[in-house]
Amino acid sequence: MSGNESSGARPDRFADDPAFAVHEGGKLSVVPNRRIESVADLALTYTPGVARVSSAIAAEPGLARRFTWASRVVAVVSDGTAVLGLGDIGPAASLPVMEGKACLFAEFGGLNAVPIVLGTTDVDEIVDAVVAMAPSFGGINLEDISAPRCFEIEDRLRERLSIPVMHDDQHGTAIVVLAALRNAATVTGRRIGDLRVVVSGAGAAGVACTKILLEAGVGEIAVADSQGILHPGRELAGTKQWLVENTNPAGFAGSMVSALEGADVYLGVSGGSVPEAAIASMADDAIVFSLANPTPEVDPEMAARHAAVVATGRSDLPNQINNVLAFPGVFRGAIDAGATAITEEMKLAAADAIAGVVADELRPDHIVPSPLDRRVATAVAEAVAARAREQGVTV
Amino acid sequence: MSGNESSGARPDRFADDPAFAVHEGGKLSVVPNRRIESVADLALTYTPGVARVSSAIAAEPGLARRFTWASRVVAVVSDGTAVLGLGDIGPAASLPVMEGKACLFAEFGGLNAVPIVLGTTDVDEIVDAVVAMAPSFGGINLEDISAPRCFEIEDRLRERLSIPVMHDDQHGTAIVVLAALRNAATVTGRRIGDLRVVVSGAGAAGVACTKILLEAGVGEIAVADSQGILHPGRELAGTKQWLVENTNPAGFAGSMVSALEGADVYLGVSGGSVPEAAIASMADDAIVFSLANPTPEVDPEMAARHAAVVATGRSDLPNQINNVLAFPGVFRGAIDAGATAITEEMKLAAADAIAGVVADELRPDHIVPSPLDRRVATAVAEAVAARAREQGVTV
Repeated sequence: MSGNESSGARPDRFADDPAFAVHEGGKLSVVPNRRIESVADLALTYTPGVARVSSAIAAEPGLARRFTWASRVVAVVSDGTAVLGLGDIGPAASLPVMEGKACLFAEFGGLNAVPIVLGTTDVDEIVDAVVAMAPSFGGINLEDISAPRCFEIEDRLRERLSIPVMHDDQHGTAIVVLAALRNAATVTGRRIGDLRVVVSGAGAAGVACTKILLEAGVGEIAVADSQGILHPGRELAGTKQWLVENTNPAGFAGSMVSALEGADVYLGVSGGSVPEAAIASMADDAIVFSLANPTPEVDPEMAARHAAVVATGRSDLPNQINNVLAFPGVFRGAIDAGATAITEEMKLAAADAIAGVVADELRPDHIVPSPLDRRVATAVAEAVAARAREQGVTV
Repeated sequence: MSGNESSGARPDRFADDPAFAVHEGGKLSVVPNRRIESVADLALTYTPGVARVSSAIAAEPGLARRFTWASRVVAVVSDGTAVLGLGDIGPAASLPVMEGKACLFAEFGGLNAVPIVLGTTDVDEIVDAVVAMAPSFGGINLEDISAPRCFEIEDRLRERLSIPVMHDDQHGTAIVVLAALRNAATVTGRRIGDLRVVVSGAGAAGVACTKILLEAGVGEIAVADSQGILHPGRELAGTKQWLVENTNPAGFAGSMVSALEGADVYLGVSGGSVPEAAIASMADDAIVFSLANPTPEVDPEMAARHAAVVATGRSDLPNQINNVLAFPGVFRGAIDAGATAITEEMKLAAADAIAGVVADELRPDHIVPSPLDRRVATAVAEAVAARAREQGVTV
């Protein structure tokens, strides 16, 4: 291959960072399941043998599930507009992230995943392109698409497609947060229905977390964006208006910090920073989930001085809230069951399954499994598949 | 996995055909290049390490070629409208063919290939979808798209994209036909410029073969569709009008059979059947390429009674005209060179390279290499890459 700057006499400016070595040439390969070494192999894998398989599927479309890879492949689709903490870096620069996601699908879910990065940020064009390519895939994992476009894109794709579609930045995060909160409540001796939660951030993750916590029966939630708590006195539209109508029963109307006083849970999915006095003002045995990466909104050491449970998105700290606990198993379960969608009930089942893996090992610094825990995806897949079958949302 | 009908007590109606066993579960897998077994692996393959790679690409887009897989992946794109001899069987039923093609890209070209089957046959929608997903790929192999839509789709994609785009049913076939004709001319002691050729078929393959033979300097070509030879007296449009203007200098105006009298070469890319008297009427040392599959237009045994060289598309006969001799090396060479397109000159170079592989082994029943000949893709890739660099059509 040409284009490898490490050849030649010039010193390689990327040699000092092992992340670049891991990415050299990309992180994925497409591999045939059988070699083609003889005329007979060629005649079975390709013409004329393949024509008999194609004819059989044309006559009986359900056979595609058995004799093609489509139902076992997840497309990891992004337009590169909200990539990690980097923002709108475009499709080419987002590709390493999508390749990484595909590696995680393979490693933990035993699924094939193909990164599809799109050279458009237009909602209509994205929806049409994904709908057009959908017969190639068994599921669509939307990734790193900026809010509020991500809500409309996911809604429209779910409506038009009869395969699982999930925007992971919303629902993967929400599933793991709910799992963690269940265990955090248990370990601090509370019921989830008694918790008062302040969600800082009304983007993709904030909205989805709020919705799943409502579905799970969390007692009271107030959501803040950069202008403060969402309340009926503000001029809002779309998803934020929905949040106003469905949260904040106590009627907080000021800053996020003002709502934190006496709150049981801080959930940060926003970036920025929270002053120590605000965390100190929370209820006893407070729970602080501060997920901004790489810099949590609440300094974890500071949080530990005031809270009973602290979780972050960081791999070098305990209680890492990592989406990899959810998406491989969610898609694997949905695909195994032949699910035509990923329902709210399937997401709740996934959260319960994640929480259940460490139910017998609970400690304040161990409310979620390690992202490398191989038990998780299996447990999640079984729970999600079972719920899909119970609901009858299967082919 | 569910959906496997071979489980359970019911006898499997597909058990007798080994082609179905080869297709069980699909023919491809996406495999990470490195395992993720530790927190350190996760931190390099995914966050936070991947952010440094994405940032570097955002700052310097050319680095995507080195640190992502995009430039090493070919999309095998079809709408399932002209699949093998099966016709318009739709995207799901076409997928085994596209998976097979992807296997051949891997096996012979050392390339990753991803089947993308589209749930639309609308030209605008196909073009827009492929343009949208193009940042994910290093090349676009169009496959089994019906004429005349295939011409417009390829033209528009070539115009809008700066990566290699090739409709293989057109140009893969044309490249191998030219290679075979060069060697057939040599083995019968003629120059390609002295040959009179009758092309039977004005679809994707017929048009592309005619164009490449004109470019290669074939002396005289008449093209027939199902209504007979294309000539200025007929009402034609689009590609067929172009053919009228650029072929048939002798002014044939009747049936394909009438033009065969005294012709040096019959090239069948149409289906149907040709009577023995017509083949017998050809010039001495006639060359018969009868590519319809599985039933050649000219019965090969009959052809052998009258022609010096006979080639078909069949794997069980000598001189198999098989696109696999072209496309893996063409895309590999284009990608290795960083080519922004596949030019006519690169296709001619590919044909010369294929012909050259067997130049020292020429016999009337050995005018092209075996489709399993590992020398071919390497020779083609080198020739195509060299021609791309000479032309300066590279990034």
